[in-house]
Amino acid sequence: MASAPLTLTALNAMPEPDFVAALGAVYEHAPWVAAAASARRPFATVEALADAMRAVIEEAPDGQRLALLAGHPELAGRAARAGRIEPASVAEQAAAGLDRLSEAEYARFEALNAAYRARFGIPFILCVKRHGRASLLRRFEARLASAPETERRTALAEVFRIGAIRLNGLVAGEGPPRTTGRISTHVLDTVRGRPAAGIGVELHEIVSAEETVLVARAVTNADGRTDAPLIGGRPVPIAIYELRFALGAYHRAAGYDLADPPFLDVVPLRFGVSEPEGHYHVPLVATPWSFQTYRGS
Amino acid sequence: MASAPLTLTALNAMPEPDFVAALGAVYEHAPWVAAAASARRPFATVEALADAMRAVIEEAPDGQRLALLAGHPELAGRAARAGRIEPASVAEQAAAGLDRLSEAEYARFEALNAAYRARFGIPFILCVKRHGRASLLRRFEARLASAPETERRTALAEVFRIGAIRLNGLVAGEGPPRTTGRISTHVLDTVRGRPAAGIGVELHEIVSAEETVLVARAVTNADGRTDAPLIGGRPVPIAIYELRFALGAYHRAAGYDLADPPFLDVVPLRFGVSEPEGHYHVPLVATPWSFQTYRGS
Amino acid sequence: MASAPLTLTALNAMPEPDFVAALGAVYEHAPWVAAAASARRPFATVEALADAMRAVIEEAPDGQRLALLAGHPELAGRAARAGRIEPASVAEQAAAGLDRLSEAEYARFEALNAAYRARFGIPFILCVKRHGRASLLRRFEARLASAPETERRTALAEVFRIGAIRLNGLVAGEGPPRTTGRISTHVLDTVRGRPAAGIGVELHEIVSAEETVLVARAVTNADGRTDAPLIGGRPVPIAIYELRFALGAYHRAAGYDLADPPFLDVVPLRFGVSEPEGHYHVPLVATPWSFQTYRGS
Amino acid sequence: MASAPLTLTALNAMPEPDFVAALGAVYEHAPWVAAAASARRPFATVEALADAMRAVIEEAPDGQRLALLAGHPELAGRAARAGRIEPASVAEQAAAGLDRLSEAEYARFEALNAAYRARFGIPFILCVKRHGRASLLRRFEARLASAPETERRTALAEVFRIGAIRLNGLVAGEGPPRTTGRISTHVLDTVRGRPAAGIGVELHEIVSAEETVLVARAVTNADGRTDAPLIGGRPVPIAIYELRFALGAYHRAAGYDLADPPFLDVVPLRFGVSEPEGHYHVPLVATPWSFQTYRGS
Repeated sequence: MASAPLTLTALNAMPEPDFVAALGAVYEHAPWVAAAASARRPFATVEALADAMRAVIEEAPDGQRLALLAGHPELAGRAARAGRIEPASVAEQAAAGLDRLSEAEYARFEALNAAYRARFGIPFILCVKRHGRASLLRRFEARLASAPETERRTALAEVFRIGAIRLNGLVAGEGPPRTTGRISTHVLDTVRGRPAAGIGVELHEIVSAEETVLVARAVTNADGRTDAPLIGGRPVPIAIYELRFALGAYHRAAGYDLADPPFLDVVPLRFGVSEPEGHYHVPLVATPWSFQTYRGS
Repeated sequence: MASAPLTLTALNAMPEPDFVAALGAVYEHAPWVAAAASARRPFATVEALADAMRAVIEEAPDGQRLALLAGHPELAGRAARAGRIEPASVAEQAAAGLDRLSEAEYARFEALNAAYRARFGIPFILCVKRHGRASLLRRFEARLASAPETERRTALAEVFRIGAIRLNGLVAGEGPPRTTGRISTHVLDTVRGRPAAGIGVELHEIVSAEETVLVARAVTNADGRTDAPLIGGRPVPIAIYELRFALGAYHRAAGYDLADPPFLDVVPLRFGVSEPEGHYHVPLVATPWSFQTYRGS
Repeated sequence: MASAPLTLTALNAMPEPDFVAALGAVYEHAPWVAAAASARRPFATVEALADAMRAVIEEAPDGQRLALLAGHPELAGRAARAGRIEPASVAEQAAAGLDRLSEAEYARFEALNAAYRARFGIPFILCVKRHGRASLLRRFEARLASAPETERRTALAEVFRIGAIRLNGLVAGEGPPRTTGRISTHVLDTVRGRPAAGIGVELHEIVSAEETVLVARAVTNADGRTDAPLIGGRPVPIAIYELRFALGAYHRAAGYDLADPPFLDVVPLRFGVSEPEGHYHVPLVATPWSFQTYRGS
Repeated sequence: MASAPLTLTALNAMPEPDFVAALGAVYEHAPWVAAAASARRPFATVEALADAMRAVIEEAPDGQRLALLAGHPELAGRAARAGRIEPASVAEQAAAGLDRLSEAEYARFEALNAAYRARFGIPFILCVKRHGRASLLRRFEARLASAPETERRTALAEVFRIGAIRLNGLVAGEGPPRTTGRISTHVLDTVRGRPAAGIGVELHEIVSAEETVLVARAVTNADGRTDAPLIGGRPVPIAIYELRFALGAYHRAAGYDLADPPFLDVVPLRFGVSEPEGHYHVPLVATPWSFQTYRGS
């Protein structure tokens, strides 16, 4: 799935078997979705293609739809550990850190998976790209308490989210990325009244009081921004984050006379993300003796 | 040394042996300082008493002054571990965490102590109440590179600092605490335009990337302040600190509709203290979507 | 009324005629209130005295109470201009600028006074110390639309406000001023992380787009505050205000290299006061390129 | 000069008389500049054309260059009032308000013009598009004190500035406007954590304590910005400005319960512009009880 992205023109023109080969894995173990969508070609936009694939599932008989849910791999489950799932699933679970759990964590997932399957008859399905590890566990526990009918709909909605992101990754399009979601920043030096260039920035996910994971690292450019968003063009996993700015190093380089240790050295800005498709612009407005942030735009 | 504080009136009136018993430990293993100061009574203020004791040392013969330096206990050294030092020293070293070091850290101190003694002929003396653990080690290393003459003066200055703080702890006085140094805070809710009451605040010392120590904990009152400073009436150890405010809990209690997780939940404000006798007022001005701080007054 | 303030002890002890002479003007043209209160002596506090005088009025027959309302002078009315009102009223009206109106404004007041008297049978009574000129006119117009019963109660409440302030001005007491109300400020220099001393501050009332009145002028001290509040110990008239800070001059004096004109020179902070008895702390946190304010505490 | 802009292609192709007709007024009363530049065609860019015209002047004999300076109209002078100057000059002087002076101001300009001409033998030349009225007078007075040699160079530099702006107005080009200079804003609502839409914004020039001139008026869009900069694509006259935001109306429309008058209603942000070609981004970050600004980017 990491080869050169397909174009819509090519997809509209190719024989059905090629179309199914190209898009069969968008829905896990369900190439029949691509096959049925193939007959509805041509598509004017990637959105129209995504809508068509979703309609195929919504119009399918109950049993077939249930089979699609049942065919999904468990999170951090045995199939995943044994490699018996779609490569896309492997990558998604790895990005969420589910391939690097401790034995205790695996045990916890196994217990949750078993309880869920016992209650609902299907594996727990969640678009893991939209959740940090703590959020993922919270959702898992919350959904165990749902009514079965509600839960079936929730699971299907998650399947559609997974499919939409996979499709967007496979098919090239014009315009801005169709999968939104962004963390960006901007540093202003209000001693000199201009953007702060050359500031090292790190983005960490705060998994727990003990564990943080470095997500991205960058340096601000002449406009005080990073050349690319720290997270962009993909959902921002629901989680607590911390931006850390090397403000003291910047001020020293700018020739300010700082105390030892300086009042402000590495400045952490901690914030939570609850809307994976949202834009979180978290600027830093600072002097050697003050700083602030807000959710910007 | 923890009994009811002495008054200056009582000190001015008591027989010399009692005076020496009362103040003999202000300078480590050097009751002769108190004895000589006794003859200079009466004193109008505690400052005058402190000045007199310092003058006794400055006017003493070189050899006696050197003996005073040589008599000081090493930091985290064998004497401290074996209990052969003044109770005041025990308490001071414990407050700096020097009684709870790992074996590796003890080894590091032993090596530094040995190197220092070899180079300067006296133990390393530092007013540990003015330093967090990281600062203490940095100072130790820096002073190993000093010229012997400079270092002798530095050691004496530290002895005077230790003595002044001990004396202030022993003798009651009127007016504001004579040992300054303060960390305070203040929380303002700019959605409602008033102080934020009932916010949980913690002050942590950031010893290293892995280790933080809880220093104080409080809840803001109706004026958005803590009833007492988080650190006050004593030197603030040179270190990196983090104030942590339970802002999300406050906003939830105030009835604001927050996302899950909220954009701002626990808000850390990280800052460095370089002047132990300074006043560090670090306010938080916040809404559910913004916050700021500055060194206030 | 500007002689040395009376003490409660003296008031409790003096013969009734003296007591009435001292406090007879607290209620306009109604020395009978002081006379009746005299019989209820002694008073433990000024509040108790104020309560007693108020009770005398509340317990008086309707006709006497109505006469008290009817005896009040009109605002900016003929009696005021001709000097036939209590000296306290003269001072109060002058402080509100009602002795310096243009002919058009006098005409407007006369028309309002006539309409009010025609509708309610009493003069319009308002505690003018609690209102700027624009607020005063707005209240006048709003009250013209009240129901007569409501308006009678409102007028009496205003009479009590006037009496309480007059009494507080006449009788000395311990503790903080009993008439609250305050505008204060505080300037922080976040380039240097300390209070900004020596900044010229002016407080203006913004009467209209064309007219502003200078209310107070001060210079910040070493703590970045003015030695006294800009308004304090009296009600803050309901109005729009502007604090103006000579920030550019401060930065130039501090040796910063400013552009010509500087980005920030005289910084106005405009704010409204709606609670005359409230405390409006309006700080300025600034650098040469940024500033902010908030309602502080 | 307000007809459809010329293209570089057309200018490169047209007969010399047409070229001179088109660009003859770029330098006041000096069509010979365009004529000489015509021979240097073709030009790859507008900048190259501008450079060529400037080179013509720099390479001209001293006498001709002096004649060009001498041919410039005085500011607010008799020629301007009598209509005997280039239409471009008329428009430029009008934009600076020089056609609407009081008699006293005209008199002041006449005196300055006379003094300048007496001292330097040429009229005072200034690119008025880069100066507010107060700045223009300050520059006039300052330059009266220059050395003649320096002043001649300064006048020529101003002529080039005037020519460059005129040329940019005449000739269409691709890319961003070649004449930079911008005042823009951005309003953030930190109660709700999003851009503040629908806020009325006015930009005023503060000419003096008594006189302000409305420069632009706009309403913020969904992104909290104005659709176009308040000033853009032209130099920002050196002056003091005030942005005024109808914040109270916004908060009322958003359903916040405000006092009467609100703490913040119309919020003025006053700032100075010293670099006409600079970008002045002056945002407002606000709640009903706080606001701030800084020079952004």
